[in-house]
This record gives sequence, C-alpha cells and structure tokens, in this order.
Amino acid sequence: MRFTSEQRLDDGVLEREFTLGEIPGILWTPASAPAPLILLGHPGGLPRMYPRLAARARRCAAEGFATATIELPGSGDRRRSTTAEQARSDLRRALRAGEPVDEEIVDRLILPLVDEAAPEWQAALDALLPLPEIGGPVGYSGGVISIGIRLAVVEPRITAAVLFAGSVVPRTAFQEARQITIPLHVLLQWDDEGNDRQSALDLFHALGSAEKTLHANMGGHTGVPQFAEDAATQFFTRHLK
Amino acid sequence: MRFTSEQRLDDGVLEREFTLGEIPGILWTPASAPAPLILLGHPGGLPRMYPRLAARARRCAAEGFATATIELPGSGDRRRSTTAEQARSDLRRALRAGEPVDEEIVDRLILPLVDEAAPEWQAALDALLPLPEIGGPVGYSGGVISIGIRLAVVEPRITAAVLFAGSVVPRTAFQEARQITIPLHVLLQWDDEGNDRQSALDLFHALGSAEKTLHANMGGHTGVPQFAEDAATQFFTRHLK
Repeated sequence: MRFTSEQRLDDGVLEREFTLGEIPGILWTPASAPAPLILLGHPGGLPRMYPRLAARARRCAAEGFATATIELPGSGDRRRSTTAEQARSDLRRALRAGEPVDEEIVDRLILPLVDEAAPEWQAALDALLPLPEIGGPVGYSGGVISIGIRLAVVEPRITAAVLFAGSVVPRTAFQEARQITIPLHVLLQWDDEGNDRQSALDLFHALGSAEKTLHANMGGHTGVPQFAEDAATQFFTRHLK
Repeated sequence: MRFTSEQRLDDGVLEREFTLGEIPGILWTPASAPAPLILLGHPGGLPRMYPRLAARARRCAAEGFATATIELPGSGDRRRSTTAEQARSDLRRALRAGEPVDEEIVDRLILPLVDEAAPEWQAALDALLPLPEIGGPVGYSGGVISIGIRLAVVEPRITAAVLFAGSVVPRTAFQEARQITIPLHVLLQWDDEGNDRQSALDLFHALGSAEKTLHANMGGHTGVPQFAEDAATQFFTRHLK
C-alpha cells in the first residue's frame, strides 16, 4: 500500500488516498487513534461516490471510527471488463423496460464482481490493519450487498456488518447469506427503484445470524434518512467498541 | 382523575397510581419537569404487565419523558365483557390449533375494544395534560396496534407514535392506517408466535405517514431487544423534544 495524497479535513479527520497495487483507495482516520476500522462499501466509482463516502467517513470519525474504501473492479479509473459492461447494459435495459430482471444477467454481472472484489477488500485489510492509527475489531458497511455477504462469510476479521439491501442479488447469495453468523444491521429503502422489495425481505429472512435487524425507511435508493445512518453507526458502536 | 398512591423510585422517578372514573392507571414523572408525555400502550392487564411497563417508564424517564398508562376495557381489575371473552377464547383456540384466524373473530375481539379504549386514552390525556409536571407534545407507544392506529388518526395531540406489530389486525385497521400522517416507528418481532409477519409488513406498507420506519428484530413476541427499545426512545427524542 502506498499513500499518494494526504489532507487534514476541517473537523480534524485525516484523509489519505492510497493505491494497493493498481487499486485506488481512501483512508480516513479520526484524531483519536488507534480507532476500530469500518470498511465503506459502495456501488463502484470512487470519484463519483466521493462526496457521500467522505460524509459517511466524517460521521464515523465523529464516533471514533477509522474508515477505508477501495475502488471496485471495473469501476472508476480501473480497467473495464467487457463482459461486466455488457451485463450492466443488459440490466439497465431490463430495468428501463420495467421487465423482470433475468437471473442470468444478474449472475453475469454480480458473480465475477464478488469473486474479484472480496479478495481485494481482504488484501486492503491486510495492508490497513498494521497501521498504528487502526486498532480493534473491523466492520463492513453498505455497497453491493453480495460483496458484503461474501466478506461476512469468508473474512473472520469482520465482526459486524451493515448491509444495504439495494442491489440485485444472485440466487447463490441466498445460500451464502445462510452461513453468516456475525451481527447484522440491514438497511432497506422501501421504494428503492432498482430493487425488488420482496426479494430484499426474503434475503433478510435467509441471513443466518442470530442477531440481525432490518431498518426499513421510506424513499428511494439514495434517500436513506440521516437518523437511519446514525442508527447504523450506533450498531457499530455496540459491536466494535 | 384521582391519585390513589405515590412512591418515589430509587432513580428519582415519581410513580403514582390513579383512577379515572373506574379506570385504573399509572403515571411516571422524571425529576426534570415539565416533561413531554408518552402514553404506554400494552395488551391489557396492568397488574401482570406492571414490571415491563415500569421498566419502559424508567428508561423513558432517563431520557426526560413522563409516561402514563391506563387499563384496557375488560382487562385487569375491570369488568369483563362476555362477548370479548368469547372472542378471545375463540382466537386462542384457533392459534393453538395452528388454524388461520377467522376475520370475524378478529373483528369481534378488536373492533369493540378499539371503539371503547380510544376515547378512554383521550380522556386520560384530558386529565394528564393540565398537570404541571407534563408539558410539550405527546407520543403513543406500543400495545394493541389497532388502538395506536385509531389514536394516531383521531387524536391531534399525539404527534408521533411507536407501533408494535404484534397483534391480530382487523381489515378496517388497514383503511385507518392509510389516514395516519404523523411520524411512525414500527417494531416487528420477526418470529412473533401470535402474529402474521406478512400481514404486519402489509400493514406497515399501508401506513399513510411520509416518515415511517420499520425495525424488525429476531425473536418472539416478548423478545424485543434492549437496543430496539432504545431506538424507539430515540425516535421520541427526535420528535417530542
């Protein structure tokens, strides 16, 4: 991991961009170190997602958490995959036409993404955890839900996760969901335009954890209310501190 | 309203029993007065429910809220209704047999209860709000969900409500639910043994409020986790303070 830029934000949070091999990422650390780390998931495209990620990072820092994120395969400034681009275009066309989304399209889009992304987030953990600013248990929050599910199953350093039920989900994710045992906090936007509500409720039901909570709020995909963000941070405070 | 007993609890909360005509009730007020009032709903039977109600009252007092409750018609020490007792017995038999509960039984049990109870809670408000210890907006929390829905529709002094999706619901409650406009926080126990989960989700969907949140947690009817109780209190702090 190589830090490529560093700036101190006005609330004292240190924001550092880094690269992990070819993967760009950002680390935010609060003044109070060492701090437990929350990995911030997102749908891909760090330059576009930056304002929302930085806002989440600053709210987490205010509660004493370090946060980090990395770019997803095929997004932002990373090399595109023609098969993923084709699947994404097929998905958009189906959603625009109001058609039910073919499972084959979802598999083509999500399965390779999860297989590639999950080890990259684990590699990021390997690089981040030795930093003196980071200490304590690790959480994962938001982004593509199938990546969160995979990490919750395969990465024992992640001890609690916030999942955002706002992406299409391949059938295999339901099987993985049953294997999760860590505490989960699931956010659902009731009128999410790109998400099937019943499928999200079925996925919540499938999650294997003994402690899992669903917080459903009104509004579309990007309309998570401030109090719901705060509740997710409180979940991490309960489990990572 | 006539106070019949008074005791100061060890955390400084003043607990007073009262009667409102023939209806027994309890008022808890924190040391910091005047305090906004939360009406504590329950399934009926104050003597049996007292430990849980007092615990909720003390947690609310710690956040600066006064709380009050009254006995439901036909419960606790109040005169029984033979028709309600028959309906309750029919409902229990159906639940024990694992049969779907006939809408006619639910109507027979719930509709007269709501029609009788709602004006009693309103009369309790009339009596409680002039007290110098009480001030500010009013919330309603928990208990038979159809009573909470009725009060949220007909009582303008109630400005925010926590509903517990843990009771059978007559079809007419869905129509009333659409008329609610105040902020709502809905608790659902995912494996509530006496409650139909899909019906609870449908009822949440029907609620007319622009701000409504569903918090679903694992476990049975009486297993609401402490952190979910805390989140409900935070909802009142957002809306009543």
